[in-house]
Amino acid sequence: MRTDVVRKPTTPTRVRAWAGDRLRDRPDRLATEEPMEIRIDAPDRDLRPLAVVMRTPGHDFELAVGFCITEGILDSGADLAEVRYCLGPDAEQEYNVVTVATRRPVDLEGRTRDFVSGASCGVCGKATLDQLEVDCAPLGPGPTIGMATVLGLPDGLRAAQTVFDATGGLHAAGLAGTDGAVTVVREDIGRHNAVDKLVGHAALADDLPLTDAVLVVSGRASFEIVQKAARAGITTLVAVSAPSSLAVATAQRFGMTLVGFVRDAGANVYTGDHRIRA
Amino acid sequence: MRTDVVRKPTTPTRVRAWAGDRLRDRPDRLATEEPMEIRIDAPDRDLRPLAVVMRTPGHDFELAVGFCITEGILDSGADLAEVRYCLGPDAEQEYNVVTVATRRPVDLEGRTRDFVSGASCGVCGKATLDQLEVDCAPLGPGPTIGMATVLGLPDGLRAAQTVFDATGGLHAAGLAGTDGAVTVVREDIGRHNAVDKLVGHAALADDLPLTDAVLVVSGRASFEIVQKAARAGITTLVAVSAPSSLAVATAQRFGMTLVGFVRDAGANVYTGDHRIRA
Repeated sequence: MRTDVVRKPTTPTRVRAWAGDRLRDRPDRLATEEPMEIRIDAPDRDLRPLAVVMRTPGHDFELAVGFCITEGILDSGADLAEVRYCLGPDAEQEYNVVTVATRRPVDLEGRTRDFVSGASCGVCGKATLDQLEVDCAPLGPGPTIGMATVLGLPDGLRAAQTVFDATGGLHAAGLAGTDGAVTVVREDIGRHNAVDKLVGHAALADDLPLTDAVLVVSGRASFEIVQKAARAGITTLVAVSAPSSLAVATAQRFGMTLVGFVRDAGANVYTGDHRIRA
Repeated sequence: MRTDVVRKPTTPTRVRAWAGDRLRDRPDRLATEEPMEIRIDAPDRDLRPLAVVMRTPGHDFELAVGFCITEGILDSGADLAEVRYCLGPDAEQEYNVVTVATRRPVDLEGRTRDFVSGASCGVCGKATLDQLEVDCAPLGPGPTIGMATVLGLPDGLRAAQTVFDATGGLHAAGLAGTDGAVTVVREDIGRHNAVDKLVGHAALADDLPLTDAVLVVSGRASFEIVQKAARAGITTLVAVSAPSSLAVATAQRFGMTLVGFVRDAGANVYTGDHRIRA
């Protein structure tokens, strides 16, 4: 069930590079972007498609499982029966179609939306936030973390990134301990996917909820990143760049600690400063 | 029909800012993120929801119209009857619900997907790309542009951005002439939304297809950005940062010129270099 094929997160190409005077042909590498369809195989219904995500191949099973958990379809690894690539019409593996088989019936009705785009979350403002509270268990008290440790997290994340330096095109998300050690890093062309891969990794290792972990993300923090972190039980989210207004409002509502703009010797604590030690 | 309320793209907040020694309370501004539901009111069917996008308020009508065009629901401003905010139960304006009324029946069947996430595009790899070809009219020959002009576009875009400097959290997209003048800029927390707002702006001004314009985006170029540009008839796309593998493959397929990593005195031309003059 946990056998995931190793696939290339970068794609070789040739570019015409301008450097001051003329175009020169040279080889280059691109961050790979491919669609992946996630299907749900539950005991009470026929196999059906759940979502299509544009993702960077690699850790596909983690992505599929993490997506199911952070979007409220599954609660933990205990709900999982099997994860598999699909067989195509000629019985070849289809590496862009992943089926998540579940041990229990799942409720997909509230999850069926028309043509939802981007960082989708349901309907409008208040209704959505109310809906979220139902979906997320209350966060635990969680550990505290020293500000010096927080300030070191972006470097720890960057050091563990393997693809970014080759392409400049990937986001990273990492799980860290309160000692600042970044233990797992996942990269993806989509910010949300990188977080889903981490959560899927934890689910497959039976490590949910991630009550003692700090989530660090290489970019900005949106509503959806906060939502996904809350679904995994994460109490502290550190973003290298800016949070949105709804990310801050949602973190406040969940009682999550949200730190942003972690750069050089500075950082902003937006919510939950009781978990930050000077 | 073209009356859009002016709303704040930033939200005031207070942060606890760490600067070397201790946390100090200070005011700050966040990029506003709010969900917006787009509804379709076509002559042949009941009003129905089309999508929910997480967006930065402002230019909401452009976003709604642009989304309909770049996703293949409408072809141009001529298909539009009206764009309006919805009235809530107590007859107050709901500024997070926008209805696009059309003059002709629209085909939404192929557009109904289950829980599609992120930069969604249909089903897997090849099937998706084939589907796109049907949806997009062939691109025209388009104008050529000098490399010196290309290199100046990121500065032109940045100079026209009004919100970014306040929050550090917004993406920008701009339309430029081949003389390098950036004529329209839209900002949003979502990269795709910024492009949709530009396309909606052009549709409402009856300027589609944008055969003579160059699209410049502040971040990376994904598959979906290329797709949206192609729907608007844009032949040259300039991204400040990296393109993905599928963005390059799709640009190649459409015959679009794709330039990326435009920084300092350098840039990479990935496809369509016949439109780039040294």
